[in-house]
Amino acid sequence: MSASRESLAGGREQRVLEIIETARAKPARFRDERITLAHGAGGRATQTLIEGLLLPAFGAPGGTLAALGDAGAVRAGDAQLAMSTDSFVVKPLRFPGGSIGELAVNGTVNDLAVSGARALAMTVSLILEEGLDAGVLRSEVAAIAAAAQAANVEIVSGDTKVVERGAADGMYICTTAIGSVDARARLSSGAIAPGDRVLVSGPIAAHGMAIMLARNLFELDAAIESDTCSLWPAVDALLDAAGSDLHCMRDATRGGVASVLNELARAAGVAVTVRESDVPVDPSVAAAAELLGIEPMHVANEGRLVAFLAPGAAEHALSVLQGVAGCEQAALIGEVGEDPPGMVLVETGFGGRRVMDQLVGDPLPRIC
Amino acid sequence: MSASRESLAGGREQRVLEIIETARAKPARFRDERITLAHGAGGRATQTLIEGLLLPAFGAPGGTLAALGDAGAVRAGDAQLAMSTDSFVVKPLRFPGGSIGELAVNGTVNDLAVSGARALAMTVSLILEEGLDAGVLRSEVAAIAAAAQAANVEIVSGDTKVVERGAADGMYICTTAIGSVDARARLSSGAIAPGDRVLVSGPIAAHGMAIMLARNLFELDAAIESDTCSLWPAVDALLDAAGSDLHCMRDATRGGVASVLNELARAAGVAVTVRESDVPVDPSVAAAAELLGIEPMHVANEGRLVAFLAPGAAEHALSVLQGVAGCEQAALIGEVGEDPPGMVLVETGFGGRRVMDQLVGDPLPRIC
Repeated sequence: MSASRESLAGGREQRVLEIIETARAKPARFRDERITLAHGAGGRATQTLIEGLLLPAFGAPGGTLAALGDAGAVRAGDAQLAMSTDSFVVKPLRFPGGSIGELAVNGTVNDLAVSGARALAMTVSLILEEGLDAGVLRSEVAAIAAAAQAANVEIVSGDTKVVERGAADGMYICTTAIGSVDARARLSSGAIAPGDRVLVSGPIAAHGMAIMLARNLFELDAAIESDTCSLWPAVDALLDAAGSDLHCMRDATRGGVASVLNELARAAGVAVTVRESDVPVDPSVAAAAELLGIEPMHVANEGRLVAFLAPGAAEHALSVLQGVAGCEQAALIGEVGEDPPGMVLVETGFGGRRVMDQLVGDPLPRIC
Repeated sequence: MSASRESLAGGREQRVLEIIETARAKPARFRDERITLAHGAGGRATQTLIEGLLLPAFGAPGGTLAALGDAGAVRAGDAQLAMSTDSFVVKPLRFPGGSIGELAVNGTVNDLAVSGARALAMTVSLILEEGLDAGVLRSEVAAIAAAAQAANVEIVSGDTKVVERGAADGMYICTTAIGSVDARARLSSGAIAPGDRVLVSGPIAAHGMAIMLARNLFELDAAIESDTCSLWPAVDALLDAAGSDLHCMRDATRGGVASVLNELARAAGVAVTVRESDVPVDPSVAAAAELLGIEPMHVANEGRLVAFLAPGAAEHALSVLQGVAGCEQAALIGEVGEDPPGMVLVETGFGGRRVMDQLVGDPLPRIC
């Protein structure tokens, strides 16, 4: 049992509080000598790479990058724009419920959506492996086109590179989108306050589990489909229902719901308590995760957002969201408190509490 | 000797005219069964992939992608924006005169610049290979930061993925930039007209030759440095000097000056004649190219633009451009005619003419 799982209810409370203290005080430093898969997994190692190396080099002090949102702010004339980029290296290229091309569009559209921006224009950059079957390329091109049309985003520019056999697993795709920030949106991690309710837009962990099963590494035959979808309809409904009472959103991709909650708890200096029994997980996903010893809150989603809402607005926003296709099982899963700041605690079904840390290491490489 | 090299001056004129006719009439179709390195080389195969597969799938009819410029147009509020993306897979990561990080910033800044737009904001997406030395990453991060600062562009968002050992050759970088279109710019391939002069902003082919030599494939020890640089200062000077008499620009990257001229000759339905003796090539680059049997006009540049100017504005624009650091050897290298439409002809030193076709195949894979 890892340190993060120790019970706060028991006699080891003092020891756990020490661990919490250490975790809180540690500044993110990048001291590794080599890059590992964990640096791309969205958990602790990714955080040290971003906060310890990339942010100090790239981020202007007080600039938009320093805010570490899913999208950066761009001002052009009187337009308030948001811009976001993602590379997709998912393996396999096709999996139940989606494929790399569809993921590449939705992933980037969603980064804008949770920043309160609707994607207007997108660029698509392909890195293709020499020898790639043209039929595979054709299907992914069609998947990109269909997803872009569904999200109502125009593809305005592109690029294609080809690398030698063995160098790219078929294809990698990098998409970047620009969108206009919705006038209703007043989103920032700084707006999160004690009392806020935490909402998740649907059952979690399906995408990561679908990818894992599609790799046939386990003798497990569960019918699990990825949750990949455009989150704009959900965001639109939440903005409509809650306006400025919608304080902050993130899409819970790499590192899962746990990593997003940890990131925001740290950024806002608040505690987040999650009621484990209220977190929606499909039974087949829950069963597969239990068999594999994986915590669903650490598993990536590609069509699920986490939202923080003012207490008075949460119930209404939830019921409006549940009317959006694909969000019928949206749920309020927890709330924001003051103590311990920067931490996420989970109330288990047995009345205990445990620390829900960020993902450490990488149980699921290459899921997006 | 390839078909494209046959002399138009000799008795084989009829045969060459037939080849011209065939080349002109052939619509770009993508019929290959597998992707080859040539699809990424910027020549004929790239064109069939783009025009035969990607454009029909992604491009809205009459949309900005169909214009096949280096950047796409985006309208947001009253702002006229341009957006461009590029993935960089150059091998080796460092080479005389530059490195992948610096190239990734300048390459994308330059795509905007030749579209008449000054980059405002950029995203950086890294695909890192497991096991990459952290020192190598640190230097490329520093190179990205320095180039972005030099080009005065803010990095607003980013992404990092890690792929297993053996994939990605250390790192790939995808950059995307958005910029505002300069009020002085009236650029389009449709503005190119017979009589226009063709300008190149400096000696060509250095980047591709520098990369090739850095790979140590040949026993050739020439001191050739890449030409990589930001083209905005050159574009700024040309816009100032020529205004709307500056008809069109492209940066001559993959496929070199020859591919850019062919692309624009086809797009504008004009003929372009280049005076071979007026094309600036550094002696060391020319010597290396001759030894390796490579045509410098097919070799990639990363800091050279080709511009089309109204005849009355060309000499003044040239002299202004020659005052910009790095553009001292800018030259007028040819002009636009009517016949044969869509073709590029080279006047050789011996008074002959030959067809300068696009690059076919890929003599220089992975140069950017």
